[in-house]
Amino acid sequence: MSTEPEIPANRAATLTDVAKLAGVSVATASKAINGRDEVRAATRKKVLEAAELLSFAPNALARGLLGGRTGTVGLLTSDLEGRFSIPILMGAEDAFGAGQVSVFLCDARGDAIRERYHVRALLSRRVDGLIVVGSRTDSRAPLAGNIPVPVVYVYAPSADPDDISITVDNVGGGRLAIEHLIAYGRRNIAHITGEAGFQAARDRAEGAVAALADAGLTMIGGKPYFGSWDETWGRAAAHIVVERHPEVDAIFCGSDQIARGVLETLRDLGRDVPGSISVIGFDNWEAITAHSRPRLSSIDMNLEHLGAVAGRRLFAAIDGDDPPISEQFPGRVVMRDSTAPLG
Amino acid sequence: MSTEPEIPANRAATLTDVAKLAGVSVATASKAINGRDEVRAATRKKVLEAAELLSFAPNALARGLLGGRTGTVGLLTSDLEGRFSIPILMGAEDAFGAGQVSVFLCDARGDAIRERYHVRALLSRRVDGLIVVGSRTDSRAPLAGNIPVPVVYVYAPSADPDDISITVDNVGGGRLAIEHLIAYGRRNIAHITGEAGFQAARDRAEGAVAALADAGLTMIGGKPYFGSWDETWGRAAAHIVVERHPEVDAIFCGSDQIARGVLETLRDLGRDVPGSISVIGFDNWEAITAHSRPRLSSIDMNLEHLGAVAGRRLFAAIDGDDPPISEQFPGRVVMRDSTAPLG
Repeated sequence: MSTEPEIPANRAATLTDVAKLAGVSVATASKAINGRDEVRAATRKKVLEAAELLSFAPNALARGLLGGRTGTVGLLTSDLEGRFSIPILMGAEDAFGAGQVSVFLCDARGDAIRERYHVRALLSRRVDGLIVVGSRTDSRAPLAGNIPVPVVYVYAPSADPDDISITVDNVGGGRLAIEHLIAYGRRNIAHITGEAGFQAARDRAEGAVAALADAGLTMIGGKPYFGSWDETWGRAAAHIVVERHPEVDAIFCGSDQIARGVLETLRDLGRDVPGSISVIGFDNWEAITAHSRPRLSSIDMNLEHLGAVAGRRLFAAIDGDDPPISEQFPGRVVMRDSTAPLG
Repeated sequence: MSTEPEIPANRAATLTDVAKLAGVSVATASKAINGRDEVRAATRKKVLEAAELLSFAPNALARGLLGGRTGTVGLLTSDLEGRFSIPILMGAEDAFGAGQVSVFLCDARGDAIRERYHVRALLSRRVDGLIVVGSRTDSRAPLAGNIPVPVVYVYAPSADPDDISITVDNVGGGRLAIEHLIAYGRRNIAHITGEAGFQAARDRAEGAVAALADAGLTMIGGKPYFGSWDETWGRAAAHIVVERHPEVDAIFCGSDQIARGVLETLRDLGRDVPGSISVIGFDNWEAITAHSRPRLSSIDMNLEHLGAVAGRRLFAAIDGDDPPISEQFPGRVVMRDSTAPLG
């Protein structure tokens, strides 16, 4: 037929194709096919004719999204404790409302063979797409083999620049923490963080250094204190900082666990938090922030939002759209009792 | 055929049926069908004839276990942080060695509607069985509706006594903690624990009271200090115990988080741990026990083992066997630096 638009022979028509042919937006095409009231009768007719012309057959997931049926997505993680994966899982499930999509989580435990095994199992059970969650923010190798469904990488980006990757802006997160402390009048700020081998540690430090430079300040000690991600390092590093740099009036920590260790040492030393020294963590891990003394201000990475975006991008890709390849999202400051204006 | 044993019309023949007809053990039948060398030729022939007679068709999972192919199990949890579910998931996957079984985890978030939705999604993707993990140890309602695959309940038992339930012996866990402290010469032992509304809190307290009674002792304060599961309660309760009962020489805590709060108060008060007062927690949650001051002794519930048993029982049920209906497994004491002999 002469009016038929060009669709590569190897793929089925998508909602986008239908919308293009009907001369309407994808949203309008979706509403028309879904039988919603907001679409004028003439528009609906045009869309349905286009859909018929293109033999448009929404796949199981697309049907689910359009007609209230169900879809299933596999989530592959190596985050043993589930601390990052679970909020991302929830966000992805909630992207289209409760009871619209089931996410099946598989734990690869950082093992490539186990990962391939889980991917095969998920594909053999006909999941409509895959979300791959890294346990750290360093880029990772794309999934091995020929994957016949769309894949979205979350938290850790894929090393392949053509893959869809959704990540946290850790440089921006470091900036947010420092800007919060500067807004509270702090000028002598130290940064205690995790292993320098982690991209997350380097990115947060980079943002912190940049935000200090913008304010004409330098970091206490001249550079970040890299170590490990736990309380034990936080306690040790806080001793070093306070003894060598008694003028310190704020400490930005690369994780909440480090921050809790810092708080413990400051308490041991009789230093007033937040008055004399303000402390801010990173991750906003409720189990730590709600029960430290004082309760810990922190940077929240909005992981549920990350998961929701991942879900939407995955469904867009399933629907044949071309979602953005690479997106980074900012965190936010959650203020509690460990940061306050300089008195 | 006259030699055909009675098999209910509504179910397929299982390996057990084949073994029975052939007059061999299930293990031998399995080896014969799997083509292993250890079976004599005559025995193999007898088994294969029985299998043919019964139209024995091992299902996907049974085939996986017998012939190195794959099986898939759904794990339904409401344990938001994944702290209990992840080790259970790992144990179930490892029950038959890496790369033999994939477990798909779905998070119902304590919501019955979401649970039904996930169960339907898992069943529609042809999982061979379901593992249901509770977020607390109280018994729970069995899965709603007609579930056509075997189900094993772990951590929280099913309220239906005919279901297969695998749980932790929390009464025994309370005993273990107290016996450890008594073995270290402690005689004035307090118990600070979580909400009395939780079966786990009541069971651990019951075991603690019984172990003290066996040694001719009573609990400091006359009864457990019920409160909440976190550090904040641990800190407050430790103040109460030490002020009202200065003779206290050990504190058994119902969770590691409570224990960490207790340790913080004892440190504030300048009390020597473990010398003057020994402290033991419950859960053996590495993020807490490894970084408290001092490092925390705790009761480990062996959740990976629980998961492994769940996996084996599920596969037995899939294979048509009748696994034990209700099993409880003991925890174990993990000794670190917060408990020591009375000096």
